Parts: sequence; C-alpha cells; structure tokens
Amino acid sequence: MRGVVARRGRLVVEDLAEPTPEPGDALVALRACGICGSDLHTLAHADALPAVAVAMDMPNRFRPDEDFYLDHEWVGEVLELGADTAGVAPGDRVVSVPYLVRGVALEALGFSNEYYAGFCERFLLSAALCLKVPNGLDDTRAALTEPLAVALHAVNEARLDPGDAAAVIGCGPIGLALIVWLRARGVEPIVASDLSLGRRAAAAALGAHVVHDPLEEPAPVAAARATGGRPVVVFEAVGVPGMLDDLITTVPPRTRVVVTGVCMQPDILRPLLAVVKEVSLQFVYAYTPDEFAAALRALAAGELDVAPLVTGRVGFDGTAEAFERLGRAERHVKVLVTPDGPGHLSA
Amino acid sequence: MRGVVARRGRLVVEDLAEPTPEPGDALVALRACGICGSDLHTLAHADALPAVAVAMDMPNRFRPDEDFYLDHEWVGEVLELGADTAGVAPGDRVVSVPYLVRGVALEALGFSNEYYAGFCERFLLSAALCLKVPNGLDDTRAALTEPLAVALHAVNEARLDPGDAAAVIGCGPIGLALIVWLRARGVEPIVASDLSLGRRAAAAALGAHVVHDPLEEPAPVAAARATGGRPVVVFEAVGVPGMLDDLITTVPPRTRVVVTGVCMQPDILRPLLAVVKEVSLQFVYAYTPDEFAAALRALAAGELDVAPLVTGRVGFDGTAEAFERLGRAERHVKVLVTPDGPGHLSA
Repeated sequence: MRGVVARRGRLVVEDLAEPTPEPGDALVALRACGICGSDLHTLAHADALPAVAVAMDMPNRFRPDEDFYLDHEWVGEVLELGADTAGVAPGDRVVSVPYLVRGVALEALGFSNEYYAGFCERFLLSAALCLKVPNGLDDTRAALTEPLAVALHAVNEARLDPGDAAAVIGCGPIGLALIVWLRARGVEPIVASDLSLGRRAAAAALGAHVVHDPLEEPAPVAAARATGGRPVVVFEAVGVPGMLDDLITTVPPRTRVVVTGVCMQPDILRPLLAVVKEVSLQFVYAYTPDEFAAALRALAAGELDVAPLVTGRVGFDGTAEAFERLGRAERHVKVLVTPDGPGHLSA
Repeated sequence: MRGVVARRGRLVVEDLAEPTPEPGDALVALRACGICGSDLHTLAHADALPAVAVAMDMPNRFRPDEDFYLDHEWVGEVLELGADTAGVAPGDRVVSVPYLVRGVALEALGFSNEYYAGFCERFLLSAALCLKVPNGLDDTRAALTEPLAVALHAVNEARLDPGDAAAVIGCGPIGLALIVWLRARGVEPIVASDLSLGRRAAAAALGAHVVHDPLEEPAPVAAARATGGRPVVVFEAVGVPGMLDDLITTVPPRTRVVVTGVCMQPDILRPLLAVVKEVSLQFVYAYTPDEFAAALRALAAGELDVAPLVTGRVGFDGTAEAFERLGRAERHVKVLVTPDGPGHLSA
C-alpha cells in the first residue's frame, strides 16, 4: 500500500508494509484526512518533541531522526477487526481520537515512528476509541472533527463570561474553528486577525464580525474599538516566536490570552510587562474525549457552518507541496488528503 | 534634610532640598520603610522601566539616566498640610498607596525622578490617599502594609478553590507574605521553597507546612508528594530569568502558576511545553486600594503573624549595603530603613 513517510524534515511517498490488526484494533482505509498546523510544525521541528515527553514525565518513544508517520485528523472505513474485537464493524465509517491502545500505554498516532496514521492508505485504530460517523455526515465534514474538538476545548477552557468579546489572532484552521464555536455560542463581537486576505475572507464567511489586517494596527487596538472597552478574551492561534510578547505589549491590562498556537521554538517575552499589565497566558491543548464526541455530534447535526474551512484536496503525491503552501499561509486553510486526490493543490 | 538618591545603579546619601506641600499634599516625616525587591530590581534595571509606560499606553516620565528616588513601603508622621487640605492632621501616623496626585495624573512614588519617597527624611503624600494607622499598630508592622497588600492581591486573584494546595516558590518578602495570607485562609498544605536556609526557617515560622530546598528536587515534585495529587496552585515569587521555563518543565499538567516575581530582563520559555501541559501563567501586580486598606486592617487587628518577616534595620547610610545583601538572598528578608537606624545591617 502507499503512504507518506516523514523523513528528516521531508515528506516521501513510499510503498509500505500492510498493517495487521491485533486484538482490539480496527484496520481502516483512509477516506479523508486534514493537514494540521501541527503536522507542519512536527515535520520542521521534530527535534523539539522528545522534551515534551520529559516535561510530561512520560517515557519518550519518539526518535526524530528516524522515519515517522504524520496526521491525526482522519475519517476512515473499517475493513477488518482484530481477534476478539467489537464495537465497530467492517463498512463503518469512523473517526477517533489519535491514540492507539497498546497494553497499558497509548501510542500517539501522528507522532509515531512505528504506527501509520492518516497519510497512509490503511492504518490501525483502537476499536474502543472509534466513533461511528452519524447521520450520513460526509467525509469532508467528518474529517474536521478533530480540529473542531481542539477549538471547542479552547473555547470551553476560556470560560467566557456573558458580555465577553473575543479576538482571534491567526485565521488558520484552528483560528477559523474557534470562530465557528464562538459564533455558535453567540459571542459578539468576534474580531479576527490575519495577514492573509483569503483567510480574512474565510473568517468573515464563518461569522467573524470584524476582520482585521495586523499590518494596519495591533489587533487588540481594533478589538477595543469594536467592543467599546468591554473585556476581550484573546485567542492566540498563530504559534510563531514573538507572538506572545507582541500580545503582552499590545493588549489592554488584565487581558486573558488563551494560547492555542503551538510555537515549537523557545520564545522570548518580557515578564515585566506581563506582570505590570496583569496579563494571563492560558495555554490550552487538545480536548477531552467528550469534547471530541461533541464536535462530531454538532457537525452531524448540521449546527456548525464549516464549509469555508476546506479549501483544497490532494492525494499522497501532493502532500509535500500542500505543506509548503500551507506554511506560507496563503489562501489555503484546511487541505484534505484522500487516497484518490489530485497530485497538485489547486491554485 | 537627608535622603538616599538612586544614581545610575548606585545609592548615594545626600542633603536634599526640603519638599513643600501643595494643596492636597501632606508633608510627612519618615518613621520606617521597607526595602522591596522592586527597589533592587529598579536600581539594577532602571532602563527597563520606560517600556512599561509604553506597554501601559501611558506617557513615560521616568528618565533612568537621571537621579531618582526609590521606596514605596512607608509609614510616616504628618508634619504639615498644603493649603485647603483635610483628611489627616499633623501628628497622624499614616500609610498610603504609593502615588502622588498631580492634577489629573498620578505620580508613581518610588519610581520618580522628581518626588521623594521612603528613603528620605521627609516627603510628600496625597492626603486623600493616606490611611491613618489604627489601633496603635507599631511602625514596624505598619510599614508592612504595602507588601502584605501585594500578597493579598495575588491570593485574591488566584481564586483558590476549596481543597487547593499552594506552593510558594521563593521566600523573599512577597513569598513570605503570601504564606501569611494563605495560612490565614486555611490553605493546606502550603509548600515553601527557597535556596536560603534562613528564609526556609522564616517560612516555617510563618506557617508553611512543608519547607523545601530546590537543590534537592523540583518544588512541584515535593508539592505533589505533600498533597497526594490534589491540585497545587504555584505562586512564583522569585522573578529571575529561567524561572518560568523551569516551572513549565516541572509542574504537573494543567497547573496554574500565579506569577508575582518581577523578572526585569527578557526571558526565554518553551511555549510547546506550556501548551502540551496546559499550564497557565497568571501574572499579577500590586493591589486595589481596598486590598491595601484590608491589609492594614488585618495587621491592626492582630490577625496576621508577621514578626518573622522583619529581619533587620538600617539608617540611610546602610541602605546600599542592605541592597547588596538582600540581592544575595541570604538570611535577611525585610529590612526596614529608619532615619535613626544603624549604619550597618546586623549579621
């Protein structure tokens, strides 16, 4: 079978050995999977990952210099089950949190040297972690379950008070997914900031009340004007060095910054300014299983307008080009990879 | 009159012109004032202060290359009032938040090129901001109003849930004042960490349940053992480069870090680790006028055991030596400056 291998900073399409389901596993065929900013980050900064295991007080099994398999936003079709495995059946379309149960441990799919994930024709999931795609929800929307769960978690963790406004800094997939949930919750105004005209247009299409070009003025200034001084919770969804200090410098005193962007490099900030302004940096990550299921339910119920998120499709051969173009943050937002997708990303 | 001048990183005792109260001012004679970590920081890093005004969107009036006057933790005796001024009377002992009203602006006392503050025999306060020292509270304790207000604010902002434990990293004056309030609120256990044996002893005397030497193991590890896994809110009260990244690396996932220490230099941290662990950095600063008054009331009511905080006294001639020794964080915690104090700090 074919699949995409991450090899020392590059993506290579290769013929891979077929995976074999163990007890508890479901062998699935990829229907569609989304390219995540974390995939780009992980490919470029794989060396930073072992420190995560150390800080989490977990054994590190990730070897950045060896081949690994990216992607964690998939919808697949169950082909076959391991021995003594139930809960899903061949033919079911499923999504799942990106972990594979192995003994008492969870293997993080999308960051593994050993287990295939979304960028492969077939891969293994744990049947107990799979959720069937309900209501005939199409593959395109089902593949958005994971990033929408990430954004739902961030919005939940932000614990917005009634009357709070929101500023979303960075309108990549997570920034736009944040707008989807903020809009669904009736937060107003939502101020969305991005350097890209195309991404600002997507933000407006998804319901942002104000779109903003950070080259014109700092986003918090635009947000303050839009809200008339009401508290603005800032969602950082860029994740590049300098963003945190930039926000500390430009937000009003006592602003809460919910950090969803994952800056892979060490970053410099000025604690003096953060202290005097009483800024809070609330770093958030991933989601609970309940939030993952809630995102799928909301998608299947048609409660979320997500069409503007998906801007392109590619096959395995187009993933390297898609990574390169997504890294430039031009018009594309969420690119889906499908086994039968085109070899090049549309313009 | 005599006073201490901060001049390009050094303290110099000089004869100063007498201040004259304007309408609204009270001329006070210093009774006692505490040396704050911020005084040490400001003397060493005065160049960092103008950026604060910029980030706060306020006009900067501070010129780090010119003489300025430190200290903001005083108790004074009213000598004379400006014209048309009421609220306090000559002979009153008073404390005050460290601001002087000038027109529609507030001059920050302790960070001013123009106005004297605690390290001077006489200085000006705004009568409207003065609180009379009640209940015959002695000068030593009254001079602790300000740092206790800082710690009260941090504990209030932390919004501890019932059952939360606390770890205090750094047992300087603010760290110890945090322990005073945490103890008064019944938080248990309080884990206190400091490199200095003397400061650890002070922490224990003030009610910390566990004292900890950071050379032995990371404080969060000791805290986790002491709490049996209950949530621990970490109070950072050191304020030197590297502390935030060190805490991000060593705290358990989802830990809230309340940052009271003021790191004057740009600092480096790894957002990747903070994101994956969902750490919150809640920077806090100063206090409300109500919190300042509440600290004074609690001191006057005898509710707070603060005796172990004050470890030494000096006169103006001893301030430079006291700064040097406090910077080494040896046994001294809070040193009070009095006009008639000794020329050298006791051992």
